[in-house]
Amino acid sequence: MQRIIASSLLGVFALGIASTATADLTPEEQIRFRQAGYSFMSWNMGRIKSNLDGNYNPEQVAAAANAINAIATSGMGSLFGPGTDRNVGNVKTRVKPEFFDNLDDVAVIAGNFVAATNALAAAANAGDEIEVSTTFGEVGQACKACHDKYRAD
Amino acid sequence: MQRIIASSLLGVFALGIASTATADLTPEEQIRFRQAGYSFMSWNMGRIKSNLDGNYNPEQVAAAANAINAIATSGMGSLFGPGTDRNVGNVKTRVKPEFFDNLDDVAVIAGNFVAATNALAAAANAGDEIEVSTTFGEVGQACKACHDKYRAD
Repeated sequence: MQRIIASSLLGVFALGIASTATADLTPEEQIRFRQAGYSFMSWNMGRIKSNLDGNYNPEQVAAAANAINAIATSGMGSLFGPGTDRNVGNVKTRVKPEFFDNLDDVAVIAGNFVAATNALAAAANAGDEIEVSTTFGEVGQACKACHDKYRAD
Repeated sequence: MQRIIASSLLGVFALGIASTATADLTPEEQIRFRQAGYSFMSWNMGRIKSNLDGNYNPEQVAAAANAINAIATSGMGSLFGPGTDRNVGNVKTRVKPEFFDNLDDVAVIAGNFVAATNALAAAANAGDEIEVSTTFGEVGQACKACHDKYRAD
């Protein structure tokens, strides 16, 4: 199932197809919703880091990893529809125009990101702190791979 | 596991205990992160509604339901810490002060919400459209139960 969802995400990125449901959203709404997803993932990345740096609470880490994984595999690619490549009124986006010119590369990066969050969630649900530490680093690298190329400072 | 996470959520609400990780967040950050979670859930509720109203894509519904469920069970109660009961600078919140005076009631509402999202995710992952329709309605009612009492218009 995870593989199917990841494939769908790649398809959305590669082909630029927005789902029917998302096609009804304005560009402002798409930008806001995708930012909400990234923001909520960042909270949970911070929580996992705090656990790795301090007292490790396996339940909290599993909950955080599951949230990251479910958001990453939710189909966020559909929130990068037409008109979302720039600021819209008061809604600012840091995505670079290059993102939309390199969707094949974005699809590879997104696939790596999804795979890393799958591995993080598996490790967290198994209660394996060492493996969580490793896969957490891999998720961070997968985030950074996109930020470095396609997110403005 | 779901039951354990739900219990932790209730514990956080009932006792007002913020996790170590969350205790490091400013009130503004806590408000922003919780709003991100609610916003991302609302996108996914909208997607499920569109699927129920139109062509039903079981993979998309499962992905949306899993995102809602993982966010609902992530421990968002810890994002209602001290100082988050009012606007902070430019960061606005619609939570009513009554929320913080009735944490036992909030815990019951939160427990119902978590149970409803568990049921929605189970139905969605089973590909059972009828049961998704039923449990989707229950999640909506659980959202509304809190909004009616504790969210300003």
